[in-house]
Amino acid sequence: MTHKIAIIGASGYTGAELIRLIAGHPNMEIAALVANSKAGQTMDSVFPHLRHLDLPPLVTLSEVDFSQMDLCFCALPHKTSQEVIRDLPRGVRVVDLSADFRLEDPAVYEKWYGNPHAAIERQAEAVYGLSEFNRDAIKDATLVAGTGCNAATGQYILRPLIAQGVIGLDDIILDMKCAVSGAGRSLKEGLLHAELSEGYNAYSVGGVHRHLGEFDQEFSKLAGRDVRIQFTPHLIPANRGILATAYVSGNAQDVYDTLAQAYATEEFIQVLPMGETPSTHHVRGSNYVHIGVCADRIENRAIVIAVLDNLTKGSSGQALQNANLMLGEEEHTGLRLVPCFP
Amino acid sequence: MTHKIAIIGASGYTGAELIRLIAGHPNMEIAALVANSKAGQTMDSVFPHLRHLDLPPLVTLSEVDFSQMDLCFCALPHKTSQEVIRDLPRGVRVVDLSADFRLEDPAVYEKWYGNPHAAIERQAEAVYGLSEFNRDAIKDATLVAGTGCNAATGQYILRPLIAQGVIGLDDIILDMKCAVSGAGRSLKEGLLHAELSEGYNAYSVGGVHRHLGEFDQEFSKLAGRDVRIQFTPHLIPANRGILATAYVSGNAQDVYDTLAQAYATEEFIQVLPMGETPSTHHVRGSNYVHIGVCADRIENRAIVIAVLDNLTKGSSGQALQNANLMLGEEEHTGLRLVPCFP
Amino acid sequence: MTHKIAIIGASGYTGAELIRLIAGHPNMEIAALVANSKAGQTMDSVFPHLRHLDLPPLVTLSEVDFSQMDLCFCALPHKTSQEVIRDLPRGVRVVDLSADFRLEDPAVYEKWYGNPHAAIERQAEAVYGLSEFNRDAIKDATLVAGTGCNAATGQYILRPLIAQGVIGLDDIILDMKCAVSGAGRSLKEGLLHAELSEGYNAYSVGGVHRHLGEFDQEFSKLAGRDVRIQFTPHLIPANRGILATAYVSGNAQDVYDTLAQAYATEEFIQVLPMGETPSTHHVRGSNYVHIGVCADRIENRAIVIAVLDNLTKGSSGQALQNANLMLGEEEHTGLRLVPCFP
Amino acid sequence: MTHKIAIIGASGYTGAELIRLIAGHPNMEIAALVANSKAGQTMDSVFPHLRHLDLPPLVTLSEVDFSQMDLCFCALPHKTSQEVIRDLPRGVRVVDLSADFRLEDPAVYEKWYGNPHAAIERQAEAVYGLSEFNRDAIKDATLVAGTGCNAATGQYILRPLIAQGVIGLDDIILDMKCAVSGAGRSLKEGLLHAELSEGYNAYSVGGVHRHLGEFDQEFSKLAGRDVRIQFTPHLIPANRGILATAYVSGNAQDVYDTLAQAYATEEFIQVLPMGETPSTHHVRGSNYVHIGVCADRIENRAIVIAVLDNLTKGSSGQALQNANLMLGEEEHTGLRLVPCFP
Repeated sequence: MTHKIAIIGASGYTGAELIRLIAGHPNMEIAALVANSKAGQTMDSVFPHLRHLDLPPLVTLSEVDFSQMDLCFCALPHKTSQEVIRDLPRGVRVVDLSADFRLEDPAVYEKWYGNPHAAIERQAEAVYGLSEFNRDAIKDATLVAGTGCNAATGQYILRPLIAQGVIGLDDIILDMKCAVSGAGRSLKEGLLHAELSEGYNAYSVGGVHRHLGEFDQEFSKLAGRDVRIQFTPHLIPANRGILATAYVSGNAQDVYDTLAQAYATEEFIQVLPMGETPSTHHVRGSNYVHIGVCADRIENRAIVIAVLDNLTKGSSGQALQNANLMLGEEEHTGLRLVPCFP
Repeated sequence: MTHKIAIIGASGYTGAELIRLIAGHPNMEIAALVANSKAGQTMDSVFPHLRHLDLPPLVTLSEVDFSQMDLCFCALPHKTSQEVIRDLPRGVRVVDLSADFRLEDPAVYEKWYGNPHAAIERQAEAVYGLSEFNRDAIKDATLVAGTGCNAATGQYILRPLIAQGVIGLDDIILDMKCAVSGAGRSLKEGLLHAELSEGYNAYSVGGVHRHLGEFDQEFSKLAGRDVRIQFTPHLIPANRGILATAYVSGNAQDVYDTLAQAYATEEFIQVLPMGETPSTHHVRGSNYVHIGVCADRIENRAIVIAVLDNLTKGSSGQALQNANLMLGEEEHTGLRLVPCFP
Repeated sequence: MTHKIAIIGASGYTGAELIRLIAGHPNMEIAALVANSKAGQTMDSVFPHLRHLDLPPLVTLSEVDFSQMDLCFCALPHKTSQEVIRDLPRGVRVVDLSADFRLEDPAVYEKWYGNPHAAIERQAEAVYGLSEFNRDAIKDATLVAGTGCNAATGQYILRPLIAQGVIGLDDIILDMKCAVSGAGRSLKEGLLHAELSEGYNAYSVGGVHRHLGEFDQEFSKLAGRDVRIQFTPHLIPANRGILATAYVSGNAQDVYDTLAQAYATEEFIQVLPMGETPSTHHVRGSNYVHIGVCADRIENRAIVIAVLDNLTKGSSGQALQNANLMLGEEEHTGLRLVPCFP
Repeated sequence: MTHKIAIIGASGYTGAELIRLIAGHPNMEIAALVANSKAGQTMDSVFPHLRHLDLPPLVTLSEVDFSQMDLCFCALPHKTSQEVIRDLPRGVRVVDLSADFRLEDPAVYEKWYGNPHAAIERQAEAVYGLSEFNRDAIKDATLVAGTGCNAATGQYILRPLIAQGVIGLDDIILDMKCAVSGAGRSLKEGLLHAELSEGYNAYSVGGVHRHLGEFDQEFSKLAGRDVRIQFTPHLIPANRGILATAYVSGNAQDVYDTLAQAYATEEFIQVLPMGETPSTHHVRGSNYVHIGVCADRIENRAIVIAVLDNLTKGSSGQALQNANLMLGEEEHTGLRLVPCFP
């Protein structure tokens, strides 16, 4: 059976990435592509790399009959996403790639994002979409909130460690290195090739990055107490990839064993042999996560490093993985693309 | 039916690219990986991006029983390739990715490559592997010689134009821009990131690049007379991609019509609307070729630009396309990967 | 004696490059920095790499008393530049980096740039600023029109060859590879790191690039007849550098000898030994031009390749070289920065 | 007075960077260039970007009369450097860029570098060359040991903080992001453009990087007790630059004030306004260090970020700064090059 799929926000990078992945999915048909600002254009004029695909033209939201859709991906900016999803017919399954339904408490949402929550009634039914940790709820969900790309990377490291109590909770540091596509297709001086290539810098330093809202929520729930981590993202001159370096207190071998066991049967999460470290090169364009653990020379200190592709496993791949769960497909369908190296 | 496949020279970039593509092929099984210098190692220690695949270990040539193989890809350097293929059992189908069987005349081979041809008896049966132009012969071949990546790019532009007589034959210029993976995994100062990134240069200037041997052979055959083109490659700081800018004399509309008609039913060759020009960004990691045609302000002068990914359509993708033909598979199987952008 | 210098358009790349160079000039003082849109800001907030310099704040045009200035660099976009320079006091020497005074015939200007010439009275006194070819006129000039960066690169190759009559005039092709800073700090999707890095493409194909206006004017004057060349620029993923590959008919040794002789005493123009080819890597951040000549295998065909840094020799370095001439300084003062490699 | 300068190890990146800087020094003359493996070649064949300079040819060590030299830079690999410097005439001043004389205790040297110290007698006279902290000793020194590039970056952050006692000593973390030229011109697969660009990874994780020897020595001396920090370097796809992110406990304002005061009169060390963070883009090709301080949302936690150019301030610029001190020149001579951006 072929599922009819709509993508709202099809003219951004995550929209294009969804199309790239779905094109290889045997049981999905892209039935509608919504991009209000570029409605009327063909997809190949917006993304020429999709030229050979037989895709519907870009349309406005109001032109789509969502009741005919089996599932809808929403790849809009936050705030807009809430307003759009609020007004969709209730029957259609939705995977939201924005931040709008990730935070359970609307007050916390407003604190981090600055605007009041515009769809509180739908927030109640939203399921947090980190596939490996929330499968059962996702299968039954009508609205899944995809995690942030940084938030996903950090959680793949820290969730099992916090849940099993093998690390200290009060001195966790995540130093993150992020490729530029995470910033989207927005026109800012700092994202120009001439400004960004050949150098790098930190940003949102000191505990102000919005993905901390997710870390706080999820880690505190797991620990049964408030957990506040330090998190510093850095912008790196590459297009795809996130590398998170976690500094934790705890026995490195216990850390390793906990992660190895947690992901032993997870197809997309690869724990490297003890002492090896991963590279973003080796997950590029794919849905895989590589995790490495090293002991420090200082006793009871461990370093855990994880990498993933922010556009794939960090957003659109994760979204498709969740959609597969919601639609009763094999979870991995369309997602076994081998990383593209070199 | 699953075909048993061997890859000789599995530790180079084209070997890794073959594995990336074959991993998505429903009817091929990688049964042997040969890499003499790294025999005994696992593939994921050589290419960590393949870690999640269940691949056989790297072995030496003598450890493989080639009589059990349905098809063998040979991704060795030239000269070595001739010696290895010469000694393979005659029953096994071979797709060679090197230059060793591309030139029909062993004297011409020796002129361009410097060493005497070491497998003249097999040269006679070799079929030139530019899939779109040689399908029938490839289907029946036991030995297919994959074209050079530059040679392929230039031929996609020029073959139909020469065959149809719509351009002059004595003033053809190919100015080519080549990404670095075409140079392979060889350790040379000029290929270091610190030396190569942020700048660019021409190389093999003046008619000395070896791919001219292929151009001379193929274009002269098509024209029924000697054709000698000018060809200047440039090394660009990117990993994948070739862009060929062809300067020809002739009516631009005739040029366009000829190419549009030649490729009207070719899945992998996309001719853009008249006046549009392609970018290597939009074929990255894929088997597609994009071709654009522009008229110059000077009468009777046209510019034709083609792009492809040198590791995919320029070598390993082309090789798999040929293997599909030889094994009776659909030609496109495993090759519809969407380009990876951004 | 210290010359008081104003820079109009100080918030763009060529403005910043002027400051970088002038900071090392012993006899120039930056007395005013104009940037209407960022007036009131400090220069280090706009360009943090200039933080350690003691620079005046950015001001609007009307805040500057130009009668106190010895020389004014105008680094504005074309059209705006004409309007500003038209209204400057007539005593102040001006070096314009825009296209606004390069074309002698206002009708030709309007043809290429689309707007009527707004300062025809000043056009009459403008001197074309390719320093090496126009020294005497530049020394006495009050208004110098800096050449386009592509136009400069092409002329360093072709001017001596056309002037000496050693090449054919009807089949000249310039295939040019241009780094991205030439596009300036403008916010366009195609200039984003995620869109531009890792790939490349041609643009303005077929004889529509505006720098052709300069080529036509200068080459026709030199030849004493109309000369129309083919010129195709390509955008390369690097920040600085232009490489021009010229295809010409003529004896390669004559071509070489002509260039070697033309530039024998020119400090900034380095002709490489016959058969060697240059790289943009080796002129990065400097005022040097490297030129190489190769014979093709085809008789009477030569390839000449030149490289320069578009922001330095292609615009701001050239501008400073001209200012030195106008102010009676040694031509090379402040311009002997060694290229920055790697 | 012009000082006669020899550079031993002139064919590597730090050798080339020394030449780039010295070319702008009014009182230094490059009198000898030593590169045993490339002796007999001209410098422009090894580094074409130096083509326009009038440099002596590369020679072997034994061809140089060091008694005629005022100062000698030694830019050799460690171990070789000790052997060469041991055998130089005692009168000649030496600035060593290698690790061979940085560690005061030969046993500690052997522990980190694996080979016994080969010049213990000269170690006794070596002065640690972090210019800003050791000026007086450097002025009188005959042998100065340049610091490691990572070691320099970390110390610019941490020395004042440890000396003033404003941070905790037992939980210091340095997460470092390093450009590739720090690895030198060595031929390794991982340094190829195709392997390194577009991705990134940590290396020497867990307290095994050799620069920890310097950190341990210097920080313990400052603190008057053993100090052991965590230090994780990451390889970033850029050619120049180091960014160190330091996580420390302490009051962020005290941290800021301490650094601002420590560097108030230091020309090359720029402390940004509180809350701003630096970028490697803005020190590229220069001798400047930019430092930024941010408070974390977690009480008593501060993040300090420093950037420098590893080839300039991290090695060759620092070396020239030390040479200026040793020769009685102004410390900044030849070192005020403005960063090259974009």
